[in-house]
Amino acid sequence: MTPNLPDVVAEISALFEAYEQALIDKNVDILDATFWDSPHTIRYALGENGYGFSEIHAHRVARPPGPGIKEKRIRLEILTLGRDLATVNLEFKVRGRDVIGRQSQSWVRFPDLGWKVVSAHVSTMEPRPW
Amino acid sequence: MTPNLPDVVAEISALFEAYEQALIDKNVDILDATFWDSPHTIRYALGENGYGFSEIHAHRVARPPGPGIKEKRIRLEILTLGRDLATVNLEFKVRGRDVIGRQSQSWVRFPDLGWKVVSAHVSTMEPRPW
Repeated sequence: MTPNLPDVVAEISALFEAYEQALIDKNVDILDATFWDSPHTIRYALGENGYGFSEIHAHRVARPPGPGIKEKRIRLEILTLGRDLATVNLEFKVRGRDVIGRQSQSWVRFPDLGWKVVSAHVSTMEPRPW
Repeated sequence: MTPNLPDVVAEISALFEAYEQALIDKNVDILDATFWDSPHTIRYALGENGYGFSEIHAHRVARPPGPGIKEKRIRLEILTLGRDLATVNLEFKVRGRDVIGRQSQSWVRFPDLGWKVVSAHVSTMEPRPW
């Protein structure tokens, strides 16, 4: 469970950056390959909740390409624990709005599939603490 | 990496319910014990971003007790993979508002510490897909 072994962090960093580029390009093959193909996979997006790979895939297909809501990164934190588990958390400024966005992913390395996101959550921060 | 071994799901379910009750009771000891005591731990809350256990603890202390923003559960999904990794995702109705909330947690079983949340994210869903 050693945190942040450099080679593991490098793997996750490369996969995360490829995913971010695929969002911009609307490269559905890469988006799909990033997420675990399972009914258990969940992606809470900004304005929709996807339960299972099929729903998540449908949201990919429906989404327009383009630079999306991320105008500027504020803070990116990658945590790996051992060699088979990672979380990625990105805080960002939302494009054209005075709002903070947050993106969280949980990655698991499956013996047969390699690294996959099993759970993801994207949101805007509410303007005041609740 | 077997998904949802029943005894592992039962462990996470019990820990999650204890955490939810601790939020209502503002039992800071239980809230603190639920999260990994590490500078790497992240909790994106509804209206604040906590980086590291110390910031998260400070948010616990500042938060009022009470039933909080969860008026009604809509869908709770626990996923365990093997015996040392779990995600919890809860979709809920926000109290007194016509808004959907989402809560995500990533749990890791540390050999020396037991189960801990290493990353958490709570948000409201935006009213329309982006």
